[in-house]
Amino acid sequence: MNIAIIGSGNIATFFATKFFEGGHTIVQIISPTHHNAQALASKFNCAYSTDINALSDQAELCILAVKDDILKAILGQTKFENKFLIHTAGSITLNDLSGASPNLGCIWCMYSINKNHLPERSNIPLIINAANNETLEKIKHLAACISTSVYNLSDEQKLKAHLAAVFANNFANHMFTIGQDILQQEQIPFDLLIPLIENTVEKLTYTSPDKLQTGPAIRNDSGTIAKHIELLRMHDDYKNIYSLLTESIQKKHT
Amino acid sequence: MNIAIIGSGNIATFFATKFFEGGHTIVQIISPTHHNAQALASKFNCAYSTDINALSDQAELCILAVKDDILKAILGQTKFENKFLIHTAGSITLNDLSGASPNLGCIWCMYSINKNHLPERSNIPLIINAANNETLEKIKHLAACISTSVYNLSDEQKLKAHLAAVFANNFANHMFTIGQDILQQEQIPFDLLIPLIENTVEKLTYTSPDKLQTGPAIRNDSGTIAKHIELLRMHDDYKNIYSLLTESIQKKHT
Repeated sequence: MNIAIIGSGNIATFFATKFFEGGHTIVQIISPTHHNAQALASKFNCAYSTDINALSDQAELCILAVKDDILKAILGQTKFENKFLIHTAGSITLNDLSGASPNLGCIWCMYSINKNHLPERSNIPLIINAANNETLEKIKHLAACISTSVYNLSDEQKLKAHLAAVFANNFANHMFTIGQDILQQEQIPFDLLIPLIENTVEKLTYTSPDKLQTGPAIRNDSGTIAKHIELLRMHDDYKNIYSLLTESIQKKHT
Repeated sequence: MNIAIIGSGNIATFFATKFFEGGHTIVQIISPTHHNAQALASKFNCAYSTDINALSDQAELCILAVKDDILKAILGQTKFENKFLIHTAGSITLNDLSGASPNLGCIWCMYSINKNHLPERSNIPLIINAANNETLEKIKHLAACISTSVYNLSDEQKLKAHLAAVFANNFANHMFTIGQDILQQEQIPFDLLIPLIENTVEKLTYTSPDKLQTGPAIRNDSGTIAKHIELLRMHDDYKNIYSLLTESIQKKHT
């Protein structure tokens, strides 16, 4: 397939590289920053532009790999006509973008990509969906260049998957950050917590997290919970989180 | 050293095995369950008892590796006199146990141990503290049999480390569980989230978690946050957690 890539960031670089390695032709890179557009295009020896309206007629399919919040603005100023138009945003549904092209779809990469160190693993989860079967077939074909782990979900399911990732990744990371904050007050390095976290995450590959719950909340250890709440007396924010999550664990596991 | 082990569970087995391998003598195992006491004692060819008051005179040092909540009850019914008495509980301070022995100390293993699959890694974090220097020296000597990663902390610091672990391990695991719950409602396997979680945890070894925060909260993506809150409309518990953690991330990162 002849593919144009709109964007030159992490996902644009990752997808373009994988499609190219999979035998597809990258015909054009479009990115507002000249240097970035040129740098990515040089990898595929293809054309580039900083102008979204200079989209090549050769491109049968466009990958929209731009930040979620500027996606709609770009779609508003561009005519894609009947080209296959594949966006890459986790938080945006096909319904949100309806009207941009009849051949609309999504490949959302559920992984944090760094364009300077592209991941080696071949099982990065990809969530795909499409407005029609022809687009879905094109997307399946492309997704297979990137990963063996491809999930075709509805808009509603995809939003739920995005929400689940916010809890399991973004909010879990905030729990690590609060742990770090508490240790820092005592000049204890965060490294102390890493083996414990690694151990729990290793177990996730063969045990579901509800079976891995430990700690004072699940064992109803009210003495320890009271000590912890007292330690947090100067930090209302963390104290409220502690109480709410303790209650939630107890509710979940009774 | 001649060591008695009180307990026959995960920590009792792990510590006894490591001390034995380190050249110490396990003189006795005491555990209320006859079969467990006998089974562990057979590994070290030593005496065993189910009676806490049958503590051997040969033992210079006792390891108290019992559940946090029965620790105080055991101490109440036993005379340890001047023996070195080392407890292993994360949530209990030396101050909580003062009076049990003048030679009181603690080795708290900050890791989840399974006695049927003892860990291979040699950097499991151990938190140690002691009521006097002589006890501290004994503990340092023993801790070196278990790990290269030993932290001598005050009671207050140890409680803070325990609190930090509740956030970074127990509460993070609850975030994984909520992610699992949300996916289950849509018949999506939890496996979808594992590469993302693994990737974040891999980065913790070289980047601190506050630098790794991503998601709608930190990028102030109010559209996505509103969509997520709407998806949680039937689940007040998770909705409250979502709102509180979103606010906390925004507060932390402004």
